[in-house]
Amino acid sequence: MDPQGPLRGPWGAVWLGAARRHTDMATSNDTLARLAAVIDARRTGDPDKSYVARLFRKGTDAILKKVGEEATEVVMAAKDGARERLVGEVADLWFHTMIALAQFGLTPADVLAELERREGQSGLEEFAARKLQKRESEGT
Amino acid sequence: MDPQGPLRGPWGAVWLGAARRHTDMATSNDTLARLAAVIDARRTGDPDKSYVARLFRKGTDAILKKVGEEATEVVMAAKDGARERLVGEVADLWFHTMIALAQFGLTPADVLAELERREGQSGLEEFAARKLQKRESEGT
Amino acid sequence: MDPQGPLRGPWGAVWLGAARRHTDMATSNDTLARLAAVIDARRTGDPDKSYVARLFRKGTDAILKKVGEEATEVVMAAKDGARERLVGEVADLWFHTMIALAQFGLTPADVLAELERREGQSGLEEFAARKLQKRESEGT
Amino acid sequence: MDPQGPLRGPWGAVWLGAARRHTDMATSNDTLARLAAVIDARRTGDPDKSYVARLFRKGTDAILKKVGEEATEVVMAAKDGARERLVGEVADLWFHTMIALAQFGLTPADVLAELERREGQSGLEEFAARKLQKRESEGT
Repeated sequence: MDPQGPLRGPWGAVWLGAARRHTDMATSNDTLARLAAVIDARRTGDPDKSYVARLFRKGTDAILKKVGEEATEVVMAAKDGARERLVGEVADLWFHTMIALAQFGLTPADVLAELERREGQSGLEEFAARKLQKRESEGT
Repeated sequence: MDPQGPLRGPWGAVWLGAARRHTDMATSNDTLARLAAVIDARRTGDPDKSYVARLFRKGTDAILKKVGEEATEVVMAAKDGARERLVGEVADLWFHTMIALAQFGLTPADVLAELERREGQSGLEEFAARKLQKRESEGT
Repeated sequence: MDPQGPLRGPWGAVWLGAARRHTDMATSNDTLARLAAVIDARRTGDPDKSYVARLFRKGTDAILKKVGEEATEVVMAAKDGARERLVGEVADLWFHTMIALAQFGLTPADVLAELERREGQSGLEEFAARKLQKRESEGT
Repeated sequence: MDPQGPLRGPWGAVWLGAARRHTDMATSNDTLARLAAVIDARRTGDPDKSYVARLFRKGTDAILKKVGEEATEVVMAAKDGARERLVGEVADLWFHTMIALAQFGLTPADVLAELERREGQSGLEEFAARKLQKRESEGT
C-alpha cells in the first residue's frame, strides 16, 4: 500500500505514476484499480452501448438494487455449494459495489485502505470489537 | 495469480506493460491476498478469541447471514450519502464475502481472475451481455 | 383465524366460496387468503400471459431473488421516508414471499398461525427471547 | 381494524376471547391488525423489557437492518427446503416489516389495501405490468 494512505479525488494516472516512481514492483491491488478505471471511463459512455453507463444514468437506487440482488445470488450459490457460480456471483457483487463506490466518488483503493487499516496492529480482531460495539450500542 | 496476468482491453496492455517492465514479479492484489491469508489462519483459531474463528465454527448460514446484513448496511450508508461509512460497510461486505469464499476453499484471487476474465477483449460489456442473457432466460 | 386451522391443498375458489356461503361476514385474514388463492390459480397458468406463472416456471431461485430485491427496495423506500412507496414495496415483498411459500406448498395462513402462536400467552416478547437465543447460540 | 383501537398489556387469549364475545363479526385481516396493535403498544414500552421497544429506540436503520437479515434467512430456509423454518422466517420478516411500517406511521392495513387494489379488476397481472414498466424504465 501507498504509505501516504488513501488517495482521493482524480488520482488515476497521477497516483499510479507516483506509486511507480517509488517502486520497481507492480502496484498492489491492480486488478481492482484497473476495473475501477474502466468503470470510471464507462461512466460518461453511451447508455445504449454500455451496461455501466446505463446503470449510472439510472442512478443510485438502481445501483443499490443490484447490490441487494447480487448479495442474494451470492447467498443462493453458496447454499447450493456451487463453487464456480459462487465465484461468479461474488465477482458480480464486488463489481456492483465498485459502481456504488464510483457513484460517490470513491474507489476500491479506499476500501482496501480501510481493510489494511483494520488488519493493522491488532489484526482482524478489530472486526470483532467493532461488531461487539455495534451490537451493544444496538442492544440486540 | 498468473504473474503475467491476462492483459486485455484498450488500455490494459500499455499500462500493465509499463508496470511489468519494471519488475519480474507482480505482487498484484496483495491486500486481499494478505487478508485471505489472515482469514485462513484464523479459521482454526480459538473461537473465544477470534471473531473469524467463531463465524467459521457457526457455519455457512451464519456467514451468509452476515453477507446479507452487510449488503443492507451498504445500501443504507449509500442512501445516507455517508461516504466514509460507505467505505466501511463495503469493507465489511467484502470481508464477509471473503469468509464465505474461504468456507468453500476459494480465495479473492479466484474472484479477481474472474473479474479480469470478463474485463477481457470486450471490456466490461460482457457484464451487460450476461445480465441480458440471465434476464431473458428468466423471462422477466 | 379460521377455527379449522390452516387449510392446505387446492382450496382456491371452492374454499372461498364455502367460506362465503357460511357467513355474510368477511373471513378473517381474507385479503391474504384470497391473494394466495389467486397465486395458486396462476401457478399453472400461461407463462406468456402471467407474471406469476412465469416466476413459478423459472423456479425457486428466481422467486428468492425477487424476495432479496424487494427487501432492498423496502429498505430504500424507508430510507427516503417515502411512505406511499414504502407501502408499495412492502406489498411487493409480501407478495413475493407468498409466492415463495406457495412454491413449498405453504400459505399465508401458516405464517399467520405462527404469528398468532408467538403472540400467544407471552405476547410478542417471545420474539426477543428467540432472537437472544439465536444470538447466543451464534455467539455474536 | 378493531374498532376499539389498540389493546395493550398481556392480553393474549383473554383479549381474543373478549373480542370475539363482543362481536358477531370477524374483523377481516385481524391477525395482522392485532399484531400491529401490539407493536404500537410496545413502541413506548420499556426498552429493557421489550425487544420491540428496543428496536424502535435504536431507530430506522436498526429496523431496516433486521428486514435485510430476515429476508436473507427466508432465502436460506427456502434453499434448504426447510418448510417449517421457512414459515418461521417469513413470520420474522413480516413482523419486522410491520415494525418498519409502524416507524413511518403505517399499518398492515395499508399494505393489504394496496394488495387488494392491485388484485382488483385486472387481477394480479398488474404486478407483471408494473414490473415490466419498472424494468423498461430502468433499461435492464
